[in-house]
Amino acid sequence: MFSEKTILRIPGPTPVPPEVTRAMTHPMIGHRSGDFSALLAEVEANLREVFHTSGDIAVIAGTGTAGLEASVFSMVRQGDAVLAISTGNFGDRFTEIARRTNATLYTLNYEWGQPAKEQDVVQMLKEHPEIEVVLMSHCETSTGVLNDVQAIAKITRAHGAYLIVDAVSSFIGSPLLMDEWLVDVVVTGSQKALALPPGLALVALSKRALERVKNGPPARSFYFDLARYHKDLGADTTPWTPPVSLIYGLRASLAMIKQEGLEQAQARHRLLRDMTRAGVRALGLKLMVEDEKYASHTVTTVLVSDADAVRKVMKNDLHIAVAGGQKQLSGKIIRIGHMGYVDASDILQCLAALEIALVQTGHEIKLGAGVSAAAEVYLHAENPRY
Amino acid sequence: MFSEKTILRIPGPTPVPPEVTRAMTHPMIGHRSGDFSALLAEVEANLREVFHTSGDIAVIAGTGTAGLEASVFSMVRQGDAVLAISTGNFGDRFTEIARRTNATLYTLNYEWGQPAKEQDVVQMLKEHPEIEVVLMSHCETSTGVLNDVQAIAKITRAHGAYLIVDAVSSFIGSPLLMDEWLVDVVVTGSQKALALPPGLALVALSKRALERVKNGPPARSFYFDLARYHKDLGADTTPWTPPVSLIYGLRASLAMIKQEGLEQAQARHRLLRDMTRAGVRALGLKLMVEDEKYASHTVTTVLVSDADAVRKVMKNDLHIAVAGGQKQLSGKIIRIGHMGYVDASDILQCLAALEIALVQTGHEIKLGAGVSAAAEVYLHAENPRY
Repeated sequence: MFSEKTILRIPGPTPVPPEVTRAMTHPMIGHRSGDFSALLAEVEANLREVFHTSGDIAVIAGTGTAGLEASVFSMVRQGDAVLAISTGNFGDRFTEIARRTNATLYTLNYEWGQPAKEQDVVQMLKEHPEIEVVLMSHCETSTGVLNDVQAIAKITRAHGAYLIVDAVSSFIGSPLLMDEWLVDVVVTGSQKALALPPGLALVALSKRALERVKNGPPARSFYFDLARYHKDLGADTTPWTPPVSLIYGLRASLAMIKQEGLEQAQARHRLLRDMTRAGVRALGLKLMVEDEKYASHTVTTVLVSDADAVRKVMKNDLHIAVAGGQKQLSGKIIRIGHMGYVDASDILQCLAALEIALVQTGHEIKLGAGVSAAAEVYLHAENPRY
Repeated sequence: MFSEKTILRIPGPTPVPPEVTRAMTHPMIGHRSGDFSALLAEVEANLREVFHTSGDIAVIAGTGTAGLEASVFSMVRQGDAVLAISTGNFGDRFTEIARRTNATLYTLNYEWGQPAKEQDVVQMLKEHPEIEVVLMSHCETSTGVLNDVQAIAKITRAHGAYLIVDAVSSFIGSPLLMDEWLVDVVVTGSQKALALPPGLALVALSKRALERVKNGPPARSFYFDLARYHKDLGADTTPWTPPVSLIYGLRASLAMIKQEGLEQAQARHRLLRDMTRAGVRALGLKLMVEDEKYASHTVTTVLVSDADAVRKVMKNDLHIAVAGGQKQLSGKIIRIGHMGYVDASDILQCLAALEIALVQTGHEIKLGAGVSAAAEVYLHAENPRY
């Protein structure tokens, strides 16, 4: 009966709204057609609004990691010095991508669960004035840490370097005012709060980053050469065949976000985060990120003994998938994704299922405590009716 | 009324069958789940059959060009000598990708419309015994030339080099017996005869190519590192988030091909090619590829004066999109795609529309001559009932 029912409360891929699924069934069109150019131009204009940039957004067939590689392989030149800041598994991935460029690589690695510290970045840039490009994650998906992009962007710009931000799992959920905060490159993917299937990477370039990309030597990659994407965007097209169906889906997703209002969508994500955190705490569980300032709006990480057994009950008996820990956190945490097509009732359901799974795996909790704590947060929220 | 009706007779993207569209609406699933692993394992087994290989097929989020880059960036190492054979626009693209690797690059460039010649390859490999990797296109989509992969594979293997074949637009439509012909790497994409939306690249590695990839230094690219794809395929998963919906679509497409039978599907493509060529000739038009041996089974190129005006009538009045020429062939040719979800009646319709468009643009033709010549081919085919 329920073989196709799995409610995704993982930090991506996320549930795809029916509006998006329908949009993606549009009959196929040629990508060198006026219809496609009109579609891309419309999407591009709406993307600029959600990226808060007047720059270009490259629409790339590939997933988030493709976007990270496109940004690094276009921005980092032979012989550059690069600072890679890592606060977890996805930060490490960003570092690995930079390593392939044979750049001189400096790293700042933080204990998993901790955010990046501004003073370390200041210090590093002072010690290594040759650093030209800085890489960081906004939300570190493996730990649920939300790094302070605004602060680090300010430091990076003061130094004269370029900041590339992995915003794959924070995008839409958390504010990221690209131009205002002086961020040079923002990367995201389709399968998080944009609520599309995976397969689209989006890379936004500030005017300043674009100048670097346009005037530099050829990019390390041909497929990911952002100078080519920029050139073709000028003619409302893409250098290679684009993922047409996903772009129809993206148009629908952006329309839904516009209808809700981006700020309202961000308030919703923050509320869902607050509900989740209150619920988890009321069950006597510990959060990995105690400090609310650094707690992701899109994924909440909970320390649970026997985490994978708890997840298994939730998945098998109640058809709710939450994520486990990666690498050294394997078996020690549960990550609850609350991004994209998620509302308050989804969080209540998830917490209720978590309670049952905790009881069934022998944890001593007060049944209902998590759900009611979350409900209290909801009832006291300023404007929770989304 | 017909704003969503455009019959795609371009060489990709191609019409998506309703079976595939439906399959792609499957609710989203997590990619680190048992459900996804089962899906990937099933798809992988069926891919091996259509690739005619016992090797691995990497399933990559990206389009055909991504597959080409993945193959070159994984197979070509710093300092290698590479021979790039180009018979048109997509061959040139393959060459450009190789150029990014800083390999020592040798090229064989043919006049557009001409196939690659075996003796040139023999000569080149003799003159440059250091060549380790050879790149070629099977079907050159810009001209409709079908190159002789089997012959060039034999030459390449005798030399001890590795052959990478761009089979993006020939795959399924034309036989390519990867293992038997001694081809090392075959690249294809989803939006051609597989009849999926664009967004998936498939890269098959022979056992021999896999050894090279596994034992070499790290690939130039992180995202496209085929050693990582191979390692994860062993656990029925992918290194990065895969394009889940497209993989559901791929399963449906492969099931349709299996039901028809791959050889039958290839016979169908050949028949559609023969019908198209007969129809075009009966209208007094010239084919770009006169020699049937080198005439693509999936795209037919027709020399037409005022080609873009003809195309415009077909598109605007009859809702049939055919492709024009690229670069130096712009305005001089019409390319008719007949790959994927296409049957004989589709070709008759396309030729009938071409006739009307020719009349309306002032060409002197005998109305009905093209359609009836194609019908004759159909009626005399051995087993045309697909």
